[in-house]
Amino acid sequence: MEIGIIGATGNAGKAIFEEAVRRGHDVTAIVRDREKAVEVLGHEAKILEKDAFSLSQADLAGFDYVIDAFRSPKAYEHLDLAAKLIRLFRGNKHTTLFFILGAASLKDPSGNRLLKAILANNANAPWIETPLQQVHEYDFLTWIDNVNWTAISPQGNFKVGPATEYVMGTDQLMQNTEGESVVTTGNVAVAIVDEIEHPKHLRQRFTVVDK
Amino acid sequence: MEIGIIGATGNAGKAIFEEAVRRGHDVTAIVRDREKAVEVLGHEAKILEKDAFSLSQADLAGFDYVIDAFRSPKAYEHLDLAAKLIRLFRGNKHTTLFFILGAASLKDPSGNRLLKAILANNANAPWIETPLQQVHEYDFLTWIDNVNWTAISPQGNFKVGPATEYVMGTDQLMQNTEGESVVTTGNVAVAIVDEIEHPKHLRQRFTVVDK
Repeated sequence: MEIGIIGATGNAGKAIFEEAVRRGHDVTAIVRDREKAVEVLGHEAKILEKDAFSLSQADLAGFDYVIDAFRSPKAYEHLDLAAKLIRLFRGNKHTTLFFILGAASLKDPSGNRLLKAILANNANAPWIETPLQQVHEYDFLTWIDNVNWTAISPQGNFKVGPATEYVMGTDQLMQNTEGESVVTTGNVAVAIVDEIEHPKHLRQRFTVVDK
Repeated sequence: MEIGIIGATGNAGKAIFEEAVRRGHDVTAIVRDREKAVEVLGHEAKILEKDAFSLSQADLAGFDYVIDAFRSPKAYEHLDLAAKLIRLFRGNKHTTLFFILGAASLKDPSGNRLLKAILANNANAPWIETPLQQVHEYDFLTWIDNVNWTAISPQGNFKVGPATEYVMGTDQLMQNTEGESVVTTGNVAVAIVDEIEHPKHLRQRFTVVDK
């Protein structure tokens, strides 16, 4: 598959890039800074240097999958980039957009979104904007019925680490065998490439937890 | 005020254009087709010919108000254009975006959004996409806290007609003295220019009904 990864030098982006390359896909890192990308991904990495918000349909039309692993300290940019990518692919039947969301839109055992507890416990924390905007991003995606999209939420703890084994879920917070809601970047990367090779979640969000 | 109107040749756009000009504002029609704009708005009309989705920050930065009276047979473009305009003005404190929504996001006497009844009674009507997407557009706007925006919903019947007198509301469907949920383009235009001259609804949606 031809795969473009926006934000390929981030923790998640790098893990996905390496997993997809390892499995023989033709992967392009879409990044703002070529030098940084070479440093993080190596000299062999195929790179498209462009600001995510300047990407055109022509830049992306050749990809089978465009993975949005973009991260920004301006949390609203998660929503803005999702809206921009959806706009670029309205009515397109070739390319699938793959969004990496946060965990806050998953439901906890009480049946509420995790966001509710996060807001209750951290009302004034500056980082609250990120889970909030990523929930908006998910809600926005649920409105979109004429673009091929898939989304994945990590768990409460999304940590840098190798692929081991993962368990898949849909809309619920999940736990590993030690009772922790945790997933590694490596497992998320494997789950994403698995979904790309055997798509099962068109216009759906799914989640994975470490086994 | 410097006012730009996207979709100024539509029924609502034309009424707003004429009301704002009549009250001495510096009004620009932002339209895809200059010839049509001259035909509808006259030879004196100030025109910026550009596709709404190609507008840049530089095109719009000089306006105090940008009014989104855009209409498209592709209903999802109402949402897409709102997202695009919000993106252009993130963090901007000078310009206010003014969105004309539909009535479907207003609440009927049962306390439900009018959309619910519309969907129940017209599930397979092709036009259902327009109220649906305009509800999405409103929900999207409620997430935006770093852009100056205001929105107006007309009533169930939004008809071409002159300004008479209007009564203002917030989130409810309203009725005129004959018990009809109706508002003219003329009254909506007056209400919009009133709001521009005396802003009371920053980051709020309001509605008006014929008296």
